[in-house]
Amino acid sequence: MAVQTAASTTDSTVDLGPAAALSCRECGHRVPLGPVFACEECFGPLEIAYDFSSYDTEELRKRIEAGPANIWRYAPLLPVPADVAEKPNLNPGWTKLVKADHLARELGVTGGLYVKDDSGNPTHSFKDRVVAQALEAARAFGFTTLSCSSTGNLAGAVGAAAARAGFRSCVFIPHDLEQGKVVMAAIYGGDLVGIEGNYDDVNRFCSELIGDPAGEGWGFVNVNLRPYYAEGSKTLAYEICEQLGWRLPDQIVVPIASGSQLTKIDKGLQELIKLGLVEDRPYKIFGAQAEGCSPVSTAFKAGHDVVRPQKPNTIAKSLAIGNPADGPYVLDIARRTGGAVEDVTDEQVVDAIKLLARTEGIFAETAGGVTVGVTRKLIENGVLDPTKTTVVLNTGDGLKTLDAVAGTGLTATIRPNLDSFREAGLA
Amino acid sequence: MAVQTAASTTDSTVDLGPAAALSCRECGHRVPLGPVFACEECFGPLEIAYDFSSYDTEELRKRIEAGPANIWRYAPLLPVPADVAEKPNLNPGWTKLVKADHLARELGVTGGLYVKDDSGNPTHSFKDRVVAQALEAARAFGFTTLSCSSTGNLAGAVGAAAARAGFRSCVFIPHDLEQGKVVMAAIYGGDLVGIEGNYDDVNRFCSELIGDPAGEGWGFVNVNLRPYYAEGSKTLAYEICEQLGWRLPDQIVVPIASGSQLTKIDKGLQELIKLGLVEDRPYKIFGAQAEGCSPVSTAFKAGHDVVRPQKPNTIAKSLAIGNPADGPYVLDIARRTGGAVEDVTDEQVVDAIKLLARTEGIFAETAGGVTVGVTRKLIENGVLDPTKTTVVLNTGDGLKTLDAVAGTGLTATIRPNLDSFREAGLA
Ligand SMILES: Cc1ncc(COP(=O)(O)O)c(C=O)c1O
Ligand SMILES: Cc1ncc(COP(=O)(O)O)c(C=O)c1O
Ligand SMILES: [Zn+2]
Ligand SMILES: [Zn+2]
Repeated sequence: MAVQTAASTTDSTVDLGPAAALSCRECGHRVPLGPVFACEECFGPLEIAYDFSSYDTEELRKRIEAGPANIWRYAPLLPVPADVAEKPNLNPGWTKLVKADHLARELGVTGGLYVKDDSGNPTHSFKDRVVAQALEAARAFGFTTLSCSSTGNLAGAVGAAAARAGFRSCVFIPHDLEQGKVVMAAIYGGDLVGIEGNYDDVNRFCSELIGDPAGEGWGFVNVNLRPYYAEGSKTLAYEICEQLGWRLPDQIVVPIASGSQLTKIDKGLQELIKLGLVEDRPYKIFGAQAEGCSPVSTAFKAGHDVVRPQKPNTIAKSLAIGNPADGPYVLDIARRTGGAVEDVTDEQVVDAIKLLARTEGIFAETAGGVTVGVTRKLIENGVLDPTKTTVVLNTGDGLKTLDAVAGTGLTATIRPNLDSFREAGLA
Repeated sequence: MAVQTAASTTDSTVDLGPAAALSCRECGHRVPLGPVFACEECFGPLEIAYDFSSYDTEELRKRIEAGPANIWRYAPLLPVPADVAEKPNLNPGWTKLVKADHLARELGVTGGLYVKDDSGNPTHSFKDRVVAQALEAARAFGFTTLSCSSTGNLAGAVGAAAARAGFRSCVFIPHDLEQGKVVMAAIYGGDLVGIEGNYDDVNRFCSELIGDPAGEGWGFVNVNLRPYYAEGSKTLAYEICEQLGWRLPDQIVVPIASGSQLTKIDKGLQELIKLGLVEDRPYKIFGAQAEGCSPVSTAFKAGHDVVRPQKPNTIAKSLAIGNPADGPYVLDIARRTGGAVEDVTDEQVVDAIKLLARTEGIFAETAGGVTVGVTRKLIENGVLDPTKTTVVLNTGDGLKTLDAVAGTGLTATIRPNLDSFREAGLA
């Protein structure tokens, strides 16, 4: 169990809906569905191969539109059983796509600017989407413990999903995360282990644990269940297009940690095109990083195909992955679609958090500050076209990264009378 | 403008949908819609009187079901213009009604237990619902500044809604609130004033300010716009019934601060019965307070009709209103429906927060700890019937009251290797 290649495969009775097999992103080698993530031929990453051949476009569209107001409306396109909505899970997704007219005015966007606000998810980050998929895979493969390495948001999402589903959980995080993320990850009653090191150390440790008897029977959502987990990010692409009236946006700005989310958003858009649910038109995907952890942006600008690892040092801790697994694929997608990868300083991140809050009433975590800040920078640099429909992702919640904006507080403190109010100069 | 009685009324061209007039809850005196909240005859509270006479039940049901996944699906029953969904507002509501089977098992509920989880709202509390109504009234009456007295959640909701709608905001809170609530209230760029005193001092100050030239042109959502504001809580009742398949629950457990929410949930249920949208069956409403601020619970148990003010001292700061405006109405509703009002200690609040997190993956703020704790106590005391369908409200988010569960954190801190993991005894 829990080996790294497809040697120990699962029998074909596993029901994960339209998921037909695992297929290697590098060499195309196919293996049956199972808790494996690396190709036995070439060690490339495995991803889900689907059988969508029986779908009629208009029937599928109707079925989706009649579905629940959460990601399970897209169950026919995800590696989950058809009755997934009846199981105890957190039912994330179908978050708001906010038309951001005030922000558009400040940034000079005339083609329509939208914020996809994933802070509305159950544990207030997009990670609920990916965990919901991994949970179904864990159920199918008979795991009883959910685990992960996390920069913070994933820890809370795994803890909550495990509690709701009746799984044990044991999650691993860098020991020095934000208080909100630590408490949220711990409150659900699972084990929460702080590791002396950064995320890349945590991740390396989890890979070790998976090969050890101590990790037997554990579903690591972003390691041995990664092919399933990653598919959850496709739902962001589906929702954006459906909420735009089954239309592709022209430009999307996506944050990058491991790069998984960005690659799956592209996959989701491609699927919608192939299924005929949206018109086949060009779109551009832009990746966003913090300067203090910008290995992908650095590689993009240098014209490299590989990503050189970096030691992270940024307030955007949720994006602080110095050795991003999907980095090369991100570079490929940004280049193929005509997008770009850009980074902003911590100061620009804070400014962008405040800008988004002030203009649209959305309180984003640092990751949202990164995407809004990068959007602004790309417009200033003439890279992002302000006359085109643009979607910016806010993937997390400001309440989890309070320290980043800790200077924000009371305008004044007064005694409860009008004189004191007048003295404060607020009248 | 902004006077306390209906002397300065608004002309009849104000379009607030089905809202026909303001009517006194005590003497029935009617006045035109305007920014007034107290009866000029008897100083009783004014509330909205509607004209629902033209509605056909089945047409209305279809119209609601075809509406957006937010409170505006109920626009025909709210004091808002028909095109409200097109205006810039935060579109709260349609939050999850979670079937809580694990929690039910722990509490011994067999009749179906549900958590209405309002932490999914834009600023993560039910206050987005009431502010959304007040904002529309403010727009209709030509105010340009939104204000309020707040125990914390309302401040964030007002700040965010004002930012989104392009209003100025200036909100007042006790100076010693939780960090999460202070930062969230401040981040949207409005003025945030801390008052040296408790909520009741803040509230008294706001009433003074409203009669002063300094407060001219200000819409205080919970003072001069209170009749409109309060209606927002009806949407909790509507959603619960619609999500139960257009059925009344047998029992609802509601937190009490001013008592406004509880009274409007009752009003909402009554409206659904009168409109024929649910079957007319008995239901019981239970109120929940923290022992450290339990004026309504104390009056209920003593058999009193009036509520004696109390100086609050509890970790449930969002419910810390010692002089609750709607206290007598709450007593009346609890008694009329065969419900009760109960309170729990701060320790029981914390235990209940952890219980809900561990069983259902929902991280509630202290107010949710109060309702879950009171539910448990009422079952133990034989007051709440475990064989009946029961809905417990979680009206806020745990991320805003981290201090209440600050002891919760890492299970262990280890070095990134298997030996260190084994030493920690987690394998
Ligand atoms: C808030 C937030 N946004 C974005 C990401 C990026 O995810 P990925 O690793 O898929 O690039 C993360 C990852 O932890 C995150 O927490
Ligand atoms: C989270 C939460 N729940 C419940 C309430 C109670 O509201 P009411 O004043 O309507 O009783 C409040 C009021 O501030 C609140 O913040
Ligand atoms: Zn391969
Ligand atoms: Zn009166």
